[in-house]
Amino acid sequence: LAGQLSLNRSTIAAAYRLLEQEGWIRAHVGRGSFVQAGLQNKANSTPIISFASARPPEALFPLSQFRQVTREVLESSQLPRILQLGSPYGYEPLRQWLLTNRSRPGDDLLITNGCQQAIDLLARSAIQPGDAVLVEEPVYPGLREVFLRAGARILPVDVGPDGIDIDACQRAIVRDRPKLAVVTPSFQNPTGATMPLAARMRLLELCRASGVLLVESSIYAELLYEGEPIASLHQLDTSGQVVQLGSFSKIAFPGLRVGWLTGPKSVTAAAAQAKQWSDLHSDQLSQAVLYRFAASGMLEAHGDVVRASLAGRLKACVAACLDHMPPGAGVTHPRGGMNLWVRLDPAISTQDLLAQAEAAGVAYLPGHLFSATGAHRSSLRLSFAGLPEEQIRKGVAILGSLFATQLRRPAETRSGLPAMALV
Amino acid sequence: LAGQLSLNRSTIAAAYRLLEQEGWIRAHVGRGSFVQAGLQNKANSTPIISFASARPPEALFPLSQFRQVTREVLESSQLPRILQLGSPYGYEPLRQWLLTNRSRPGDDLLITNGCQQAIDLLARSAIQPGDAVLVEEPVYPGLREVFLRAGARILPVDVGPDGIDIDACQRAIVRDRPKLAVVTPSFQNPTGATMPLAARMRLLELCRASGVLLVESSIYAELLYEGEPIASLHQLDTSGQVVQLGSFSKIAFPGLRVGWLTGPKSVTAAAAQAKQWSDLHSDQLSQAVLYRFAASGMLEAHGDVVRASLAGRLKACVAACLDHMPPGAGVTHPRGGMNLWVRLDPAISTQDLLAQAEAAGVAYLPGHLFSATGAHRSSLRLSFAGLPEEQIRKGVAILGSLFATQLRRPAETRSGLPAMALV
Repeated sequence: LAGQLSLNRSTIAAAYRLLEQEGWIRAHVGRGSFVQAGLQNKANSTPIISFASARPPEALFPLSQFRQVTREVLESSQLPRILQLGSPYGYEPLRQWLLTNRSRPGDDLLITNGCQQAIDLLARSAIQPGDAVLVEEPVYPGLREVFLRAGARILPVDVGPDGIDIDACQRAIVRDRPKLAVVTPSFQNPTGATMPLAARMRLLELCRASGVLLVESSIYAELLYEGEPIASLHQLDTSGQVVQLGSFSKIAFPGLRVGWLTGPKSVTAAAAQAKQWSDLHSDQLSQAVLYRFAASGMLEAHGDVVRASLAGRLKACVAACLDHMPPGAGVTHPRGGMNLWVRLDPAISTQDLLAQAEAAGVAYLPGHLFSATGAHRSSLRLSFAGLPEEQIRKGVAILGSLFATQLRRPAETRSGLPAMALV
Repeated sequence: LAGQLSLNRSTIAAAYRLLEQEGWIRAHVGRGSFVQAGLQNKANSTPIISFASARPPEALFPLSQFRQVTREVLESSQLPRILQLGSPYGYEPLRQWLLTNRSRPGDDLLITNGCQQAIDLLARSAIQPGDAVLVEEPVYPGLREVFLRAGARILPVDVGPDGIDIDACQRAIVRDRPKLAVVTPSFQNPTGATMPLAARMRLLELCRASGVLLVESSIYAELLYEGEPIASLHQLDTSGQVVQLGSFSKIAFPGLRVGWLTGPKSVTAAAAQAKQWSDLHSDQLSQAVLYRFAASGMLEAHGDVVRASLAGRLKACVAACLDHMPPGAGVTHPRGGMNLWVRLDPAISTQDLLAQAEAAGVAYLPGHLFSATGAHRSSLRLSFAGLPEEQIRKGVAILGSLFATQLRRPAETRSGLPAMALV
């Protein structure tokens, strides 16, 4: 753009910043900037229907409870200590609560700036350049990118309806001897897939037998809407080989950036040292507030509210996809979480159609962003958690119509990069 | 210790954690755990006099003002947005305030989790393994360690009464072509030294001529107690070659972990990308609270309170050192900041005497912790900011007496590692 307009890159960057501040666009980590609302939409005050971000809706935030627990922290005799320098491991009352309620006997726990920092600290403390890391394909880009930056070789293993392909994991482990395997067994991002109990047991056994440290992201696991919960890898582990990553951010208040990493003491101690050099420790005001929010039972109660609301949204999103996506489209049917995954005819490039979708008032993330191999160019992720059911139905209908129109065109007039240009 | 007691290392780690929670010891980043109070002191309820930590005293925290601005945030219509996911660059109102009040026209600014993360993000975004980084000797260990972990070659340049030795900088720059030079021109940690204006100008010119990015830590600069302020490198810079690191943590509320990095847009943009992969963004509740604390004028007013209090403490510490340290000791005379530096007779090992000092009720940090070369074994850092003047006088008298007693002993009975074992 800078070249096109003969402007300085920093001018363009500032303009993008301004557009974001004013709500015209939204910048996504490593994915570039996305238009929030086409100019026309903005002019008409019609907000764009965005399926782009996997986060809980602000409208559900329990603000009066948040104010109450924050006032309690302000009146607490602990306030001066909360505002003073603290421990790399985190604010001790919250850490103890998490050890009791989100960990297992014998394991240790480190509080992090959200799950993203937990991933980064693992990459910094458990990986040397050249080490192999087994990940899901498609995968959360913030996970793939952190391990790539740590110099790891990424081993992508396909995710199917029952989560990661265990036979393919076995082959990759035998062939490439990864140091870590990172999986999201419940409501995987982006597919929403869940590993059945038997698959979890097999993966545990595989990793145990080959000495692979198994990293379980459980940030969506509490968002179960249908059926019975399945024991986590961390719960099933009998040999101290699982590190679990968690966060409050998918239930409430992601702006507070509080997550955690729990597992064998050797792993948490190394991560704590990486944490010290990264930022000494996490902000303690938010930790103290979230401690009271969790320990008072408000977190659990609010989880029920979120689950009830998001269950309806997921149902609406799946139903709308079945109604509106073109014949032949594959749509995942998650039992929880915030994301579902749509596979379209290979003739469609979801990246190329994004601008048209946004002009029509709908945003999503194209599938290739989630790939370690450049695949999934005809897929897209729909994050439904932030949208009312009405908006979900409307947004999916618009997308379905756009994709169908595209498929009816003769191949040579379809918008999209020519196949040669794909990299 | 685990070996000595035939216990599991994790048991020992847990015991240390417990000791720390109960205030018996304090764990320092990368320096190990230090006894807060000898058992005898604890039994007598005499708290140890600790010169170990450079942080503002809790007793000075303006708690009622903190409560007031936090309540304002709670009642603000912005609260839902503050609690939602935000920008890697930081909470925009605070960022704008800092751009206006702590930066210079044309530069950009990124909010970080304290100054430690600002250093880390620079190391992650501006350094490739093998790059040379010029640092002060002695130096803040959290700076040296971050660059070492990034794979940098450390070029230590001695600090004298007027800060870093500019002639030595010139030689190091010509010889080793560093990518970055990192300095603390005002009230350097650990020496308290300040670079005069002429030295700043020379360093700027040197770095400009050789294309070295100059990184200025200004975290102590506002703590000026005596004389006129000197323009910062960032203020003096005319060629966009200076990145300045700042923090609220030395004035108030270090537990909130809010710092920043400001400089040329190319540098801040690369650091912002590293920030995204590190932890997406910093907690926004603390940023919103500190924004109101700063924008209301409370920060500036509180700065006056801190400066008035710490000026007396610095004076008391220098005077006590002159009274009590053994003849021949060198004591720096900082005009601000939180630290002074004492050089003792080479016969004394401040590391070896630490246990005796702690048994006598006084803690400090031995000089070698601040060295990139294993030097400064007969020096120590005294961080006076957290101690009332009375305690400072008492603590320095105890240390002076201990060091003098040690020097009167025949060389062979002095405690300390034999010279051969020094590394």
